[in-house]
Amino acid sequence: MDNLDIKKALVIFSGGQDSTTCLFWAIKKFGKENIKTISFDYGQKHDIELESAKKICELTGVDFDKVEIKDILRSASPLVDSKVEMDFYNSCAEFKPGVQKTFVPGRNILFLTIAANLAYHHGAKNIVMGVCQEDFGGYYDCREQFITEMQKALNQGLFGFDEGLQVYTPLMYLNKKEAVELAMELGEDCLEALAYSHTCYEAKFPPCGKCHSCLLRERGFKEAGLKDPLVKRSLAYALS
Amino acid sequence: MDNLDIKKALVIFSGGQDSTTCLFWAIKKFGKENIKTISFDYGQKHDIELESAKKICELTGVDFDKVEIKDILRSASPLVDSKVEMDFYNSCAEFKPGVQKTFVPGRNILFLTIAANLAYHHGAKNIVMGVCQEDFGGYYDCREQFITEMQKALNQGLFGFDEGLQVYTPLMYLNKKEAVELAMELGEDCLEALAYSHTCYEAKFPPCGKCHSCLLRERGFKEAGLKDPLVKRSLAYALS
Repeated sequence: MDNLDIKKALVIFSGGQDSTTCLFWAIKKFGKENIKTISFDYGQKHDIELESAKKICELTGVDFDKVEIKDILRSASPLVDSKVEMDFYNSCAEFKPGVQKTFVPGRNILFLTIAANLAYHHGAKNIVMGVCQEDFGGYYDCREQFITEMQKALNQGLFGFDEGLQVYTPLMYLNKKEAVELAMELGEDCLEALAYSHTCYEAKFPPCGKCHSCLLRERGFKEAGLKDPLVKRSLAYALS
Repeated sequence: MDNLDIKKALVIFSGGQDSTTCLFWAIKKFGKENIKTISFDYGQKHDIELESAKKICELTGVDFDKVEIKDILRSASPLVDSKVEMDFYNSCAEFKPGVQKTFVPGRNILFLTIAANLAYHHGAKNIVMGVCQEDFGGYYDCREQFITEMQKALNQGLFGFDEGLQVYTPLMYLNKKEAVELAMELGEDCLEALAYSHTCYEAKFPPCGKCHSCLLRERGFKEAGLKDPLVKRSLAYALS
């Protein structure tokens, strides 16, 4: 019917905290030898995250594969339009409700579309993605209902029926604290990789600590009672 | 909720027979001033069709907009892989059943994803696409069920609910004869544009007449009792 290998998985890998955790989740579930990754250069100002992705792939011993889609998505998000100012906060309590202006319309739809083509090409049945409905900036394309509909659409378009590719989103209902706890369960290799993961929307290392993304990460580690390995690496860097 | 203009439409425009007919259908339905087009360079060997698309846009007085996605889709289709041989036939009666090997997995999923981002950007509620379930080479992503699922996924990902963008597929249940009859109804401008449309998978002008696509077109015009304007142009070219 669909010639897909149920053991093979493709991880959509940004080099951030969530997708790094998902990479190790996928390695545990499918075995390292069955994992491929795909990373996207979509014109993000923080394309430094792709350096993180590459570094973590090297550390982990999985292939790094970058797809260039820089000029495709049109958006007024400050993530891709340098003329638009980012919002900064002193704490998570200051976050504005609703969809954050960093939302890039169609980004995850595009990521899943290209990943599905690649999974089809490799004969991999499984796609793993670090989207999360819990601490998510209101992005519509991070919600389970979107993933469910998109999986159906991908399978209809590729195979003519609803079964086929399976999209896993292990973080969907975890808040950042729980995502850190999952990383701790996944072990030392995962925590070591997180030291090299990139989160800051401002593309800064050490992280800016004032953007939506930095603040969520900070709260997650604090609530989980773990020193963020990235902070440790930042301090070492500052002292060097 | 979604800030989309119900009068504005984006036509996915390959420069082929079907999307040319759809362009004129859309002009009739929404008015020329409300139409934008989007064309894709996805690495197709017959990228000569993009010259057709551009020429027809000029003739018609609508914008031509080409998006470069050449290195994104991986596929063993002879449409994009020059090492794979195309199938040739003497007539439609020789077509093999099932999905033709020209199928490019994910192509229409990708087209709709990028078109949806652009429609969102322009505030256009409507997307028009020339896919067809009737004479369609077995491509899964030309079927109504795929379009229905994809529309839901796009709207969930962009707006968080099922309403929003509306994908129109005026040719879905027309065979090629009926598609020609629709073009005749749409009038002289449409027929004139069809003289410049490109169909041949072999990228040939005059058309090869032996590929799946050429043969379907030929049968459609024959059954509709109309001389194909492209054939007239080819003859004029041969005599020039």
